[in-house]
Amino acid sequence: MDKAAKALGPWAQAGRERVDALLAARFEDAWPPRFQAACRYPIATGGKRMRPLLVLAAAEALGCCDDATVQHAAAAVELVHTYSLVHDDLPAMDDDAERRGRPTVHIAYDEATAILVGDALLTEAFAVIADCPASAETRMAMTRCLARAAGHRGMVGGQAADVGLGGPVGDLDALLALHRGKTGALIQAAVQLGGLAAGADAAPLERLGAYGAAVGLAFQLADDVLDSDQDAGERGPPSFVKLMGAEATQARARALIEEAIAAIAPLPQPQRLITLARFTIDRSS
Amino acid sequence: MDKAAKALGPWAQAGRERVDALLAARFEDAWPPRFQAACRYPIATGGKRMRPLLVLAAAEALGCCDDATVQHAAAAVELVHTYSLVHDDLPAMDDDAERRGRPTVHIAYDEATAILVGDALLTEAFAVIADCPASAETRMAMTRCLARAAGHRGMVGGQAADVGLGGPVGDLDALLALHRGKTGALIQAAVQLGGLAAGADAAPLERLGAYGAAVGLAFQLADDVLDSDQDAGERGPPSFVKLMGAEATQARARALIEEAIAAIAPLPQPQRLITLARFTIDRSS
Repeated sequence: MDKAAKALGPWAQAGRERVDALLAARFEDAWPPRFQAACRYPIATGGKRMRPLLVLAAAEALGCCDDATVQHAAAAVELVHTYSLVHDDLPAMDDDAERRGRPTVHIAYDEATAILVGDALLTEAFAVIADCPASAETRMAMTRCLARAAGHRGMVGGQAADVGLGGPVGDLDALLALHRGKTGALIQAAVQLGGLAAGADAAPLERLGAYGAAVGLAFQLADDVLDSDQDAGERGPPSFVKLMGAEATQARARALIEEAIAAIAPLPQPQRLITLARFTIDRSS
Repeated sequence: MDKAAKALGPWAQAGRERVDALLAARFEDAWPPRFQAACRYPIATGGKRMRPLLVLAAAEALGCCDDATVQHAAAAVELVHTYSLVHDDLPAMDDDAERRGRPTVHIAYDEATAILVGDALLTEAFAVIADCPASAETRMAMTRCLARAAGHRGMVGGQAADVGLGGPVGDLDALLALHRGKTGALIQAAVQLGGLAAGADAAPLERLGAYGAAVGLAFQLADDVLDSDQDAGERGPPSFVKLMGAEATQARARALIEEAIAAIAPLPQPQRLITLARFTIDRSS
């Protein structure tokens, strides 16, 4: 997606800056001051901002400009993604001390602060949607979409499977279910939220949902191929490469991207979604 | 509030059962199965259900029956309260091994599960509101009210102050700010959500807000008096009893309850809110 940033050029950069500004502003009234800084810390760590870009691209696919509602939807999705990383990094979960070259929140602050920062970011995602200028119907549809994707039916359920609450993940079906939840649900929701923000009705929303599901899974397959190059072996958690081999994993990812593109090709302005889909599997990190 | 349960009798019992049934049903589609059980575990631990009862009583004060919208609002508030207990009990926070005589979630399961259960319960609070049968405007107003009270502007901010992110809590102003966030904001939101569910407009909502703020603080003052009896001394965290003495704390709690009652007395059916307010400070545990 660093390549994508270049290829998508000023569009991605401008979108990312607007979303980042909105995210920082949401914590101006965070209190106490040290907690405000802690809430902003993982947001400022940056990242590819793939999910916000998918929100913006999905809205554009429907001919909608990058307005306040679209930006709020993008910010809300990124808040959910960021909170999940903060909690994932905790010692009881993945126990990661660094993210993107900076100490993780529980290292820079402490564990209690990291738990609370995650809680604050997740809660704020729903406040952001509530505060956006769309109609109550649209905001409510976005809230439902985000809550279902982020909670036990989606991302958190996938994380629960990932920490072993579903037993060993030994076959492809179990691994697919895990990743559909853990990474797929929020990526799909990002695309759907862009559609909802643009006022889409059922038919284009279904196209966006199909695109999001395919891209979400392709993203994970590509990740597994990248990780398998680094790890070179049988160590580590279950992966698609271990179950299917690197070549078949890569082929499946490519097929999914073509499926994704076919789903949204009939929309009015699909070009940016098409580019994002291709870069999902072409990125080198 | 155990006394309140008796005094409020069948009304409280019936309300509690309906909310509990709704809460259990929300996790029927939680996955994997062991995670479903973990999500339901802290809900089944029970508790006074003070916040749901405040939602029901506030709706009744406006002449609204205990309908599906009111029950959904009550369930949403209880989910936020329950998630906050699960995260509060974690080793990095209060490190409590028991709650209401049962092992806490991270003891019964493990820390990773407890973090994810809290995340799932918080997320589901917003899904519950999104799914209730009220108008989109009403659901959106409830969502905004809950998100602002639960997040960094309210409960999570108060918890951040409580874990020391605002420095030592040495004076009454700091302690008041801490508790207005940590316990007051969600209690106030419970009362306001009952009003919103009943379709209240600005004037009665303001009365309910004043009642909720006063009752929330009185609840904490009464708690401090109860705890000071048990601890008998200067140990433990800062408290109103330490700063003001037990007698002044109790007097202030009583004055707040009279303020609360005066605020909602002009509403159509305030009796249940009046009873709940009195029991807030008369409870023995």
